[in-house]
Amino acid sequence: MIVTDNSDTLRPARRKVYVEACVPAGVLAAQTFGIRVPFTEVRLSGAQGTGEAEPEDVVLLYDTSGPGTDPRVGAPPLRAPWIAGRGDVEEYEGRASSLRDDGRAAVRRSRSAEPFPGTTRRPLRASGRAPVTQLHYARRGEITPEMAFVALRERMDAETVRAEVAAGRAIIPANVNHPESEPMAIGRHFVVKVNANIGSSAVTSSVADEVEKLTWATRWGADTVMDLSTGADIHTTREWIVRNSPVPVGTVPIYQALEKVDGRPEELSWEVYRDTVIEQAEQGVDYFTVHAGVLLRYVPLTASRVTGIVSRGGSILAAWCLAHHEENFLYTHFAELCEIMAAYDVAFSLGDGLRPGSVADANDEAQFAELRTLGELTEVAWDHGVQVMIEGPGHVPLHRIPENVALQQEVCHGAPFYTLGPLTTDVAPGYDHITSAIGAAVIGMHGTAMLCYVTPKEHLGLPGREDVKAGMIAYKIAAHAADLAKEHPLAREWDDALSKARFEFRWEDQFALSLDPDTARAYHDETLPAQPAKTAHFCSMCGPKFCSMRISQDVRDLARAQGVSTGEMVEIGLRRKAEEFRARGAEIYQPASP
Amino acid sequence: MIVTDNSDTLRPARRKVYVEACVPAGVLAAQTFGIRVPFTEVRLSGAQGTGEAEPEDVVLLYDTSGPGTDPRVGAPPLRAPWIAGRGDVEEYEGRASSLRDDGRAAVRRSRSAEPFPGTTRRPLRASGRAPVTQLHYARRGEITPEMAFVALRERMDAETVRAEVAAGRAIIPANVNHPESEPMAIGRHFVVKVNANIGSSAVTSSVADEVEKLTWATRWGADTVMDLSTGADIHTTREWIVRNSPVPVGTVPIYQALEKVDGRPEELSWEVYRDTVIEQAEQGVDYFTVHAGVLLRYVPLTASRVTGIVSRGGSILAAWCLAHHEENFLYTHFAELCEIMAAYDVAFSLGDGLRPGSVADANDEAQFAELRTLGELTEVAWDHGVQVMIEGPGHVPLHRIPENVALQQEVCHGAPFYTLGPLTTDVAPGYDHITSAIGAAVIGMHGTAMLCYVTPKEHLGLPGREDVKAGMIAYKIAAHAADLAKEHPLAREWDDALSKARFEFRWEDQFALSLDPDTARAYHDETLPAQPAKTAHFCSMCGPKFCSMRISQDVRDLARAQGVSTGEMVEIGLRRKAEEFRARGAEIYQPASP
Repeated sequence: MIVTDNSDTLRPARRKVYVEACVPAGVLAAQTFGIRVPFTEVRLSGAQGTGEAEPEDVVLLYDTSGPGTDPRVGAPPLRAPWIAGRGDVEEYEGRASSLRDDGRAAVRRSRSAEPFPGTTRRPLRASGRAPVTQLHYARRGEITPEMAFVALRERMDAETVRAEVAAGRAIIPANVNHPESEPMAIGRHFVVKVNANIGSSAVTSSVADEVEKLTWATRWGADTVMDLSTGADIHTTREWIVRNSPVPVGTVPIYQALEKVDGRPEELSWEVYRDTVIEQAEQGVDYFTVHAGVLLRYVPLTASRVTGIVSRGGSILAAWCLAHHEENFLYTHFAELCEIMAAYDVAFSLGDGLRPGSVADANDEAQFAELRTLGELTEVAWDHGVQVMIEGPGHVPLHRIPENVALQQEVCHGAPFYTLGPLTTDVAPGYDHITSAIGAAVIGMHGTAMLCYVTPKEHLGLPGREDVKAGMIAYKIAAHAADLAKEHPLAREWDDALSKARFEFRWEDQFALSLDPDTARAYHDETLPAQPAKTAHFCSMCGPKFCSMRISQDVRDLARAQGVSTGEMVEIGLRRKAEEFRARGAEIYQPASP
Repeated sequence: MIVTDNSDTLRPARRKVYVEACVPAGVLAAQTFGIRVPFTEVRLSGAQGTGEAEPEDVVLLYDTSGPGTDPRVGAPPLRAPWIAGRGDVEEYEGRASSLRDDGRAAVRRSRSAEPFPGTTRRPLRASGRAPVTQLHYARRGEITPEMAFVALRERMDAETVRAEVAAGRAIIPANVNHPESEPMAIGRHFVVKVNANIGSSAVTSSVADEVEKLTWATRWGADTVMDLSTGADIHTTREWIVRNSPVPVGTVPIYQALEKVDGRPEELSWEVYRDTVIEQAEQGVDYFTVHAGVLLRYVPLTASRVTGIVSRGGSILAAWCLAHHEENFLYTHFAELCEIMAAYDVAFSLGDGLRPGSVADANDEAQFAELRTLGELTEVAWDHGVQVMIEGPGHVPLHRIPENVALQQEVCHGAPFYTLGPLTTDVAPGYDHITSAIGAAVIGMHGTAMLCYVTPKEHLGLPGREDVKAGMIAYKIAAHAADLAKEHPLAREWDDALSKARFEFRWEDQFALSLDPDTARAYHDETLPAQPAKTAHFCSMCGPKFCSMRISQDVRDLARAQGVSTGEMVEIGLRRKAEEFRARGAEIYQPASP
């Protein structure tokens, strides 16, 4: 039942609606909770082109934009009652924070950036030894409100969602300390998701910029965001982002850990890393990229590459391994890390620190050796009840993409694959949202569950707001193209609605259904801005006389008016129709305007 | 031998060079002609990153930009001596022209647009009954200067070029009346080509605009252009375009023929069409899109489609067929059309008038029935010595793309495939350069020889200059990604040179090697504009401390400095290296700047 609307005055044909349901929560189902799942509703104007009064159509689109939050207040904690209702977490004091959490710059100036001014809650963690993860609940047969939410959102059966999570084929990133997030699933049987990277670097950007990028990314369809901040105020920036994020937030904890040891990788240790993951788990980060597969013996495999190691985390850990000649501490302490993550339901995104950084290095031994280790680690994480996805490349020429998915699915036992692109050529810096959207669509078609976007600034600089949008649009296209190729039941509905609107010259419906309505309208209006053009049966591309859609409609209308079916048209011949058509003046074309 | 340079002051690292060779011409090889094949030369600064003095590298890129012409003079007729040297053409008076050739608007105002002011030549045509086509020459074993030019350009064996043309697997569009064009080949064993559509519509655009779009499109890599003008001054616009075009020019003659009958499709006739193709053949159009496969019996197959007939030419001919209840006159007069085209060497681009206009209609019976007819017509054209390529869709979801190429190659006997996109989803008007670049890369990988670009304005309006660039860039990416996937011998060289420059922080080399150097540089400079940043070993994306490329280089340098190979590093262990590394201060990171 659709019950709520937030009218968007800029786009009267689009509004946010919530579909409500009542579901049991907790293993004993002692309580029930209402869930409200957001959609973008597009109300169509009806089939104007035919002149017939058809019932108004409605198309519901997946919506990631969140409830629309005052950044100083934060998003509402919609999952809080579900989490509490399970009765398996406890509030606690939390780790003691210090100015050092915000990095050396904060220490130097003796203050951090402005703290998040909204409500702060004491952190939650598992009260017992059992994991508090969606994987754990799914395995014991429980359909959580999070799973029910996902099922409604993807219009799937809730039991299927549970089964996919239980099998490890899907994850629902859902830290108990991020109750603001609207549950979503990452898995090959769900619609393909898109992650947007945001975050400051030492060279540029501010907290406000990053919160704005978060809002902007989710407006354009980001299913998760990763805060990859490496600059100053790293803790405070993350707090603002998590409190405002309606989507799961991922991080790479090694970045902050390195900041805590003044940027010297050889000073890194399990203790510093552990402190950092607890700090971030308490804040509510939903998944961690962990480069535990960068093993000492794999580092030399990269020496003959054209582009060496291009993962930041991978290069930091390679430097640590070389400096100590010891095995990667993330690998040696992996079980302990699992225990921490199980206590908050932080999911693993097992990082591909040795991913190729050029098409020359694609699918090489360094990459695949690490992938096999990630497969081993997947089983360790699952043993601890922790959700897992696997990160993938990077840069891969088109014909070598399928091998990546096949091997990942095999050695990682079906865990969801999450890839950066891949870029299919290296020759177009400034356009890597396109070089990689090509690879992303193809790797998505082959079963990758989430695509990490690439912006036009990749390899050149930190993305700004418009770059975030360009990257998101390219990746929503790639993800949707993959959904169509996978014949996902929901995918075609959107395309067909838009194509039908196009064929019937319902321009306003076309705009409203577009991935980016504002741009579609602006492009149309550049050459035909007047309001009558919005109902015209042509556009400036071909002009009124050469519009094939229009001629084609007239052909169809002729057949319909004469009451013959397609088959009959063939059977009885068209000569009589032809005469009638000419008698009517063959009005396919209007006289040219003088 | 590289002998000439036109220094480009804006990009000192890039310049146009010509590679020269001396080749026989004519069947008796009585003469030899010099050919000068253009390339973009990128001069690299050497491997600065390693500090070693390596020899300067040079990368040669395929260059379509032409000699740089004053639009009022036109391009030099470089092929004129080759054409004359074959001794099989004659000058003649040519068809009598009239103001009507420029359409109704010109008749009304009693004048055309400004005529092309440069040299006008009397038209040439075959002096005997034998074709004057590259196919004809190739079949009789002759390597023409055009073929030799293509061979040098693609760094292939000239005999291979001849054999591909002789077998019909490649075409070299080369009208004897377009001596200005620099020969190029379209075929699955050559690099994937890109066509740019330009041309005015009744609603907007001028002659000057279209000439500018031509220059702009070839600057960004257009291998051919199609003049799809449907507006006023259609003959004069085409004259300006052909005289200035360094690349083959294609048209859809039915558009002008329709204008000659005042836009009434039922008034079209073979005679009007024949007059038009002779007019355009005399001007020098290199290939014609001919929708001869839109048969009367196929039209009803489109009635149940979501988007009917979306090809302009297809819809015009469908309307004609319905109005007359007669078979398509292009089909019934196809042999006569072949005779005309053989006398000028105009190639067929057999049009897919029934191509799908939405993913809903992809690969349907209407589309494939027409394709089979195009296969029959291919053999008829070949019997007349006329070169042929086949047009393809359109809108196709990713997983249904391979079937298109496989069927086309089978039923059209290996004739080159030339596709519009295809778009892989319909939901993103305003971004169809991206929705279709995804499909274009994939269909190119599967063997499509030329990709017709799609601009961001597709479905919304007539593209302007910036749209032409956006479409070209997206399609050069798609074509190059396909070349890499086909493992074309030349393709990887470019990517590897850029990747190496990237890894070695040779920023200027990266920019110079980029598909769009200006944009790559501008994006970099947005956040790090100062000149020192051009030699910095990082960019603003990660900042100095987190640059993985830099850390990775240090890892490699360490190994190199210690004189051990990759294998040895594994064998002898890394502990000693680790100690030395630490003793050196583990200088992977510089101290943070205060």
